[in-house]
Amino acid sequence: MPVLATTTRLAGRASARYGPGMARHILTLSCQDRPGIVAAVSSRLAEGGANILEANQFDDLETGRFFMRVLFDGADDADHGANLAPVAARFGMDWALRGADTPMKVLLLVSKFDHCLTDLLYRWRSGELAMEPVAIVSNHPRSAIGPVDLGDIPFHHLPVTPTTKMDQEARLLALIEAEGVELVVLARYMQVLSDGLAAKLAGRCINIHHSFLPGFKGAKPYHQAHARGVKLIGATAHYVTGDLDEGPIIEQDVERISHSDTPDMLVAKGRDIERRVLARAVAWHVEQRVLPNGKKTVVFRR
Amino acid sequence: MPVLATTTRLAGRASARYGPGMARHILTLSCQDRPGIVAAVSSRLAEGGANILEANQFDDLETGRFFMRVLFDGADDADHGANLAPVAARFGMDWALRGADTPMKVLLLVSKFDHCLTDLLYRWRSGELAMEPVAIVSNHPRSAIGPVDLGDIPFHHLPVTPTTKMDQEARLLALIEAEGVELVVLARYMQVLSDGLAAKLAGRCINIHHSFLPGFKGAKPYHQAHARGVKLIGATAHYVTGDLDEGPIIEQDVERISHSDTPDMLVAKGRDIERRVLARAVAWHVEQRVLPNGKKTVVFRR
Amino acid sequence: MPVLATTTRLAGRASARYGPGMARHILTLSCQDRPGIVAAVSSRLAEGGANILEANQFDDLETGRFFMRVLFDGADDADHGANLAPVAARFGMDWALRGADTPMKVLLLVSKFDHCLTDLLYRWRSGELAMEPVAIVSNHPRSAIGPVDLGDIPFHHLPVTPTTKMDQEARLLALIEAEGVELVVLARYMQVLSDGLAAKLAGRCINIHHSFLPGFKGAKPYHQAHARGVKLIGATAHYVTGDLDEGPIIEQDVERISHSDTPDMLVAKGRDIERRVLARAVAWHVEQRVLPNGKKTVVFRR
Amino acid sequence: MPVLATTTRLAGRASARYGPGMARHILTLSCQDRPGIVAAVSSRLAEGGANILEANQFDDLETGRFFMRVLFDGADDADHGANLAPVAARFGMDWALRGADTPMKVLLLVSKFDHCLTDLLYRWRSGELAMEPVAIVSNHPRSAIGPVDLGDIPFHHLPVTPTTKMDQEARLLALIEAEGVELVVLARYMQVLSDGLAAKLAGRCINIHHSFLPGFKGAKPYHQAHARGVKLIGATAHYVTGDLDEGPIIEQDVERISHSDTPDMLVAKGRDIERRVLARAVAWHVEQRVLPNGKKTVVFRR
Repeated sequence: MPVLATTTRLAGRASARYGPGMARHILTLSCQDRPGIVAAVSSRLAEGGANILEANQFDDLETGRFFMRVLFDGADDADHGANLAPVAARFGMDWALRGADTPMKVLLLVSKFDHCLTDLLYRWRSGELAMEPVAIVSNHPRSAIGPVDLGDIPFHHLPVTPTTKMDQEARLLALIEAEGVELVVLARYMQVLSDGLAAKLAGRCINIHHSFLPGFKGAKPYHQAHARGVKLIGATAHYVTGDLDEGPIIEQDVERISHSDTPDMLVAKGRDIERRVLARAVAWHVEQRVLPNGKKTVVFRR
Repeated sequence: MPVLATTTRLAGRASARYGPGMARHILTLSCQDRPGIVAAVSSRLAEGGANILEANQFDDLETGRFFMRVLFDGADDADHGANLAPVAARFGMDWALRGADTPMKVLLLVSKFDHCLTDLLYRWRSGELAMEPVAIVSNHPRSAIGPVDLGDIPFHHLPVTPTTKMDQEARLLALIEAEGVELVVLARYMQVLSDGLAAKLAGRCINIHHSFLPGFKGAKPYHQAHARGVKLIGATAHYVTGDLDEGPIIEQDVERISHSDTPDMLVAKGRDIERRVLARAVAWHVEQRVLPNGKKTVVFRR
Repeated sequence: MPVLATTTRLAGRASARYGPGMARHILTLSCQDRPGIVAAVSSRLAEGGANILEANQFDDLETGRFFMRVLFDGADDADHGANLAPVAARFGMDWALRGADTPMKVLLLVSKFDHCLTDLLYRWRSGELAMEPVAIVSNHPRSAIGPVDLGDIPFHHLPVTPTTKMDQEARLLALIEAEGVELVVLARYMQVLSDGLAAKLAGRCINIHHSFLPGFKGAKPYHQAHARGVKLIGATAHYVTGDLDEGPIIEQDVERISHSDTPDMLVAKGRDIERRVLARAVAWHVEQRVLPNGKKTVVFRR
Repeated sequence: MPVLATTTRLAGRASARYGPGMARHILTLSCQDRPGIVAAVSSRLAEGGANILEANQFDDLETGRFFMRVLFDGADDADHGANLAPVAARFGMDWALRGADTPMKVLLLVSKFDHCLTDLLYRWRSGELAMEPVAIVSNHPRSAIGPVDLGDIPFHHLPVTPTTKMDQEARLLALIEAEGVELVVLARYMQVLSDGLAAKLAGRCINIHHSFLPGFKGAKPYHQAHARGVKLIGATAHYVTGDLDEGPIIEQDVERISHSDTPDMLVAKGRDIERRVLARAVAWHVEQRVLPNGKKTVVFRR
């Protein structure tokens, strides 16, 4: 059970309240629904001296699965995990408890397009993202991306060819483990992860791709969308699974286009949508607002 | 403590779950925040045999006030109010418990514009609004509104002049009380309620009006917006208070306009925004998703 | 060359300008691009005493095709068509000239869902749509749709079964011709038009259908979208062709949904999007703002 | 009459068409409406060997003023200005003709907030903005803004105090003239320009500021919006005039907020809206899509 991270924002939010010796935590859980879950969890937290600041529940009436997220303040020397464990066991919960005072460790994977990378770094510096970028990895050299200031974040060039792919992914995974990476973001990384790597990163690897109504398969999708004459283009952020572009969706958005937009303009507008949608998905994930629900997600938006 | 209404939608939503002898309820509450509120409420509900389907909390860290909404199923012959009363007393709660199987009784006030009335009736017939329209009141005769089908809903013509205003409002209030009206909707009612009536209807009377960036005072606001050359027009739904157009905001939305839109076109687009925003505000109110928070609202959107 | 229709709105718009003996017209044209088209058309109009109020051009640089729409005032006893014909011939134009003082004759096709029908009739009565509904046709009896006021518009029940489909379509086409119908709107008509009828109505028959990112084929699309966990649902209005749901797109829009929306709620939100998107497509078509461009459309939005 | 700039995008757009010895131009004009303007302009262009690629007209029926923008290709050794001058004189036009192959020279004014600056530079590098940033000026030292890569763009520190304001503005104006600056962008410049400087820069200086429904005056507007409980926050880009924040509006947009957004979160969301709205306004201005119309603008959006 990882116990880490907070954002400036969250910390700042409750400064008047947040006493000495207190720390902020986020609890997420899911289990088969039955009466008494909220009561059991909240009572246990109260007994442990915790104060609930924000809580969300959702009951999936189709599957009978119950989902909950709780943001609470508690003594920083208390073992809130040990306190909650008996309740979690009793209800057979999938659960995670994480300190909210340490930003989540994130690895950013890129290729040649840098609009998502640039935007994520800007938002991180602005204090919008409760993350710590511990590594930037590209299958191209540093010079392939534009004049974006990477600051002190280590840049790793891990080139890949069909014959070296297994080895490259092994090196990537070693880096993920060595750095204690909690989230991998494919910020327009133009390589498909192998099924094996996708499986190892299940639920902690986010991808962004374009989306259209109707959808288009194959190369040059913005050109296809232009040829079809669609009036909206969009992007989807999702968790990576072995099934390419089909993992659980976290966030989507669209923008209006017109007949006078050329394919190049679509690509430019697409950049805007992609960076916006990916930034939201990352923000919600690092604040632990996204809970997996089979092939779907529960997103407790703020 | 009123104990009434459900929507087809909500009922339909959990039909698989909803056993014989069970009824659905919505609990809303607010109180000064302190540890243990969620635990106390949810434990008490569990002890009373209730099953929580959906719950939301919000802790206003500026004021230290805590807000909660709980949707639960419980035995239909149990007195859930009596069960909860001791907890409510202990925390000094403002609270309401209402059955969710009976639609909320709504009175619709109109003048000559019927776009909001038409839209609310259409959504009600479609099963989108958990309400029962018990009366339509206008300061104009039935013929002043268009060919909208009022069905069996009684239409009351309560004309008003400056000298008869006090009397008209007394008759309106008598109707509200006689019919057990729970919510009054000013669906483009072009009369200002007196401070006295606004005070009596505090928290249960919703108004819709146009909104602009920047705002405009006085007559013909769409013409003013046109003259100013704004690129967005909008609408705001809010609770009515003595302070005209300044009550707690429930919902807002905007639409894009251009230099080629005439004032008439702005009025037409404004109709669309007004009906959409008012419908959302009414839907959320009748599902008890809107909790007052001083001059603001907490809206637990679905 | 049909020479008909105006809207209250358009007429009202220029009342100060619109002199006695004048009429308003809309010219639309497309042709292979070459220098001098705008000059030739506008000079010819000026020579014919016309005054251009609004004009749009678009040059499709991929295909070299040029598109133009002109709104102009001209003497009501002048033959503007004869005046323009030599220019049209010189440039090999596809062109249409239509009086803008007579609303376009529209036939509305429905089945059991009445949200689009209700909305179109409401907007027509509000003066937003420059159309005259000359017939409402359903494959179900009048009682299948809700309590919507059809006014004086004739309702035709044309039931259809696989064996009677050819005959039903022949009757429908006869009605279209007898009434001088200029536009057929499939306002949630749940029958697929035959290729033959689709071909006969090419460019003058608009359909509305749901759209998703990604798309879903087959039955119960809102349930599929729910199962997939999409975060946006949408609708597309398009011209009908033999290729089902694949005709030239006129307009699209989406709305945000969440994990807590049930399939029933998606259907309800879908109704809102469908009626909004269809109303826009119809409004633009009847104002002759939509020009066909192969499998796409050029839409000169106002 | 300045004759300069094009964007990669525009150039790329018509590369198949754009022959040797040809150059692209943008003509913008306004004049009192009367019959024959479009004919006269387009005939004159055709006589001068120009080919119109895109054209927009708008006739303000309230004021009788006519607006037009034309994008055309013409021989690069022809004097299109001299060709058009007689027509312009005949109709008493305000007009501008500018080569579209040279990007517009832009000066960016900043203070401490760098989100708009960062975004504009990113979009410029991506080829989305047909501009050339010739100078960045701040009233604070370079260190006041974050780690944004300014490349080769000269940075000028022009500090200002009440007593040095006149002098600082004189230096700024000297720089504007020395560099041939065509557009000044206040990218969150936290100083009010004097009336004199605003007048000198009329129509070529764009500002961005937050906007709300309803509006708020005074300091800390996001905190005021939070206190009022609004559900939307927005931003407005406008030309600077002597009347602070009241110049002709170019573009506006909004984003949805909720009761759980703190003032800090509003500020963060506001940054997103501000940079998006300012980028659009600058893009449209440098493509000469924005024509002044008294206290309003005509925006021929692409």
